Amino acid sequence: MTAAPLPESQRRAPSGPEHLLVRDPLHSLFWRLPEGVTLVEPDGVSPGVTFPAGLLAGAAAAGLKPSGKPDVAVLSVGSDWWDTVTSAAVFTSNAFAAAPVIVSQRETSPSKLSAVVANSGSANACTGQAGLAVARAMQAACARGLRLEEKRVGVASTGVIGTLPAADRVQAGIEAAVRDMTADGGGRFLEAIMTTDRFPKACALEVVTHNGVVRVGGCVKGAGMIAPGMATMLCFVTTDAVLTPALARSMLRREVGRTFNKVSVDGQMSTNDCVFFLATGASRVYISPAGAAQLGAAVRALLQRLALMIVADGEGATKVMHLRVRGAARDEEAMCVARAVANSSLVKTAMYGCDPNWGRILSAAGAELAGQSLGRTYLEIGGLRVVENARALPLAAETQRMLREVMARSEVDLLLHLGSGRGREEMYFSDLGHEYVTVNAEYTT
Amino acid sequence: MTAAPLPESQRRAPSGPEHLLVRDPLHSLFWRLPEGVTLVEPDGVSPGVTFPAGLLAGAAAAGLKPSGKPDVAVLSVGSDWWDTVTSAAVFTSNAFAAAPVIVSQRETSPSKLSAVVANSGSANACTGQAGLAVARAMQAACARGLRLEEKRVGVASTGVIGTLPAADRVQAGIEAAVRDMTADGGGRFLEAIMTTDRFPKACALEVVTHNGVVRVGGCVKGAGMIAPGMATMLCFVTTDAVLTPALARSMLRREVGRTFNKVSVDGQMSTNDCVFFLATGASRVYISPAGAAQLGAAVRALLQRLALMIVADGEGATKVMHLRVRGAARDEEAMCVARAVANSSLVKTAMYGCDPNWGRILSAAGAELAGQSLGRTYLEIGGLRVVENARALPLAAETQRMLREVMARSEVDLLLHLGSGRGREEMYFSDLGHEYVTVNAEYTT
Repeated sequence: MTAAPLPESQRRAPSGPEHLLVRDPLHSLFWRLPEGVTLVEPDGVSPGVTFPAGLLAGAAAAGLKPSGKPDVAVLSVGSDWWDTVTSAAVFTSNAFAAAPVIVSQRETSPSKLSAVVANSGSANACTGQAGLAVARAMQAACARGLRLEEKRVGVASTGVIGTLPAADRVQAGIEAAVRDMTADGGGRFLEAIMTTDRFPKACALEVVTHNGVVRVGGCVKGAGMIAPGMATMLCFVTTDAVLTPALARSMLRREVGRTFNKVSVDGQMSTNDCVFFLATGASRVYISPAGAAQLGAAVRALLQRLALMIVADGEGATKVMHLRVRGAARDEEAMCVARAVANSSLVKTAMYGCDPNWGRILSAAGAELAGQSLGRTYLEIGGLRVVENARALPLAAETQRMLREVMARSEVDLLLHLGSGRGREEMYFSDLGHEYVTVNAEYTT
Repeated sequence: MTAAPLPESQRRAPSGPEHLLVRDPLHSLFWRLPEGVTLVEPDGVSPGVTFPAGLLAGAAAAGLKPSGKPDVAVLSVGSDWWDTVTSAAVFTSNAFAAAPVIVSQRETSPSKLSAVVANSGSANACTGQAGLAVARAMQAACARGLRLEEKRVGVASTGVIGTLPAADRVQAGIEAAVRDMTADGGGRFLEAIMTTDRFPKACALEVVTHNGVVRVGGCVKGAGMIAPGMATMLCFVTTDAVLTPALARSMLRREVGRTFNKVSVDGQMSTNDCVFFLATGASRVYISPAGAAQLGAAVRALLQRLALMIVADGEGATKVMHLRVRGAARDEEAMCVARAVANSSLVKTAMYGCDPNWGRILSAAGAELAGQSLGRTYLEIGGLRVVENARALPLAAETQRMLREVMARSEVDLLLHLGSGRGREEMYFSDLGHEYVTVNAEYTT
């Protein structure tokens, strides 16, 4: 029921590209480091995917981006670890999945991937047989450069749908990216996969497990076309832990479900979404399925930070909302309500305007709950109760002042309790402002 | 496969508030008058709800709108027709339905309504028992003024959720609105229920039926919070035909389903949506259920025009899209796909930017069709095929020029054929531009 005073770090800064989650993550309301986990970010720069031992990354400018910036990237497990590596991946379920998604899903050894090649500047989606040929050519060029079997190379692309990366350029770029690979190439790798991102999104964590210290690294690209199930993005996660394929797979699926599947920028699931997870084994620290809690918590924290960075970037986003839905009849119902609120243009524009227009939250929720009697519903914004027993609470002047202060923050907490059961769910989402319109009205032209 | 040359009337005019559908409806691509039906609009002004015989309407400024503009309105069947009147109504299914919706649904004789009282400036939603008391007081004040039974008066409210119309002001306003009632009050009635609407939305039609000539009139308020099932709005439809209650009810439900339930501005269903239908019987022309086709077609045309006007207004909309989904496995699947595309912020902003970014259309559709193989999908924009067999077609320079011309129009036709079955559905939707953000970021504050 109380709002804390407003620290400088919490103030809304619509013109600044960097959200609290990026600048000062340990002071974000929405992110906590698990016990035994340390954030590694020397001079504020994250080493990203090459932080764990046994990884190399490199990039090159192949001319796919009109800007001439780097647009081809390779991430690889060092050849010393090709025998111990395990991997896992999850992909978009979009029926118009891009060619690289199809190739990565159908034409690789999913648990023995040792490298991933990626490009920006072209999504290679809706490109038919020609697109599949290019995706296969990318896989082959990377495998050739690394002297690795083709089926151990994943492929990812991002950019405009319906365009095809020029095969000769992308192959030359892959050769250059392979030559560029170093054990500290995580930053260059990330730079080459960014498109409309306003800032790099990477994270590196050191984890004390019962068997010893291991490292986790990751990076993601994505700002628009973000929705639960799964956020639209290319994501790469690495560790030097020794994992069984089954554990790598189950850990990735579970933690993606808890993080990326609970964020929304604009309710869109893309044709190109993928998350690759490579475990080199280079730490020689074996993580058993029974002893995987610490590593799992670290992977979750890492994915959560990357997911929240996507929301904070959110193509013009000025703030991030954390919506908790409680008291629904079932968890599934809570998820429907959370998605409806998080994807409501009216809620998102009100948040952009720092407007505590809670009526739009109830209206969006109520549209999903036809025929129910929800007379015990309450709603809190930043811990301030504004609705009780499904009706507006008269607010004292002091409460109204605090509410304005809460709404001006860059992180806003929303609690909607439906008062009808024990179903619960949560969602993180961004606001919708002028920059979203500007960015998205002129993306291809 | 061809795009007609671009007449002046089809050009996009982002700064003008009036869409072709308003200014020159007979030249809209999206609206056709059925045979035997005439549009009545002397000097370009529609007489609206009082066009049919036997209706009176009036309005007053009760001080609910800060602007001091009219905000209370009464529509009534003349007392000569209280015995012959039949009525019907449909309401929002939102679980947080407003007090006037609850009173109109539960505390009226739905087939014998003879009057409706409405206010703008306050939605009277999420207002608990106090809100129900105000809605009942509005009903009672209107009934008293008209010397009618209370249960024959419907109530409707629009405005900000969570606010309560001041009981004394609204009652005084209702008394003044009753005194203001005349047989040509349709325009004043409409003016008093408008909120963020940029232009009045009314329609009047004369219909030659097999039994004689009858009239249909209507008006609607609504621009934001518009979604299928049903568009967020207050809508009033009248006729002087003699109808049985069963026919009035079935006709209204069917035609609302075919019109309002197929438009979307921002995917929101409000707490206050309602459509009231009053048939005075004053024409003495009896419409039998078997002979209702002509009147049904006219009601559909009227509701379609009102629905399209809402989309064209669409809080900053610069254009209206007509999306036809064909070749889906089932009609329900076609509806899911149509809604996903129509509600996609990425599609809507691309349309605003006149950007034929069809990849976003396929991506939004594909997200609803997980696991399906849709290799025969094609997409046409304004009759120009841009996707065939689920992949981008190379477009000749001339086709690209025509595509730019099509995208610059104020009405854009989209045909998405999934090539997998016979399921079909359609949807009309608006684009999403800067004015939407401006209007909705600052609605309550």
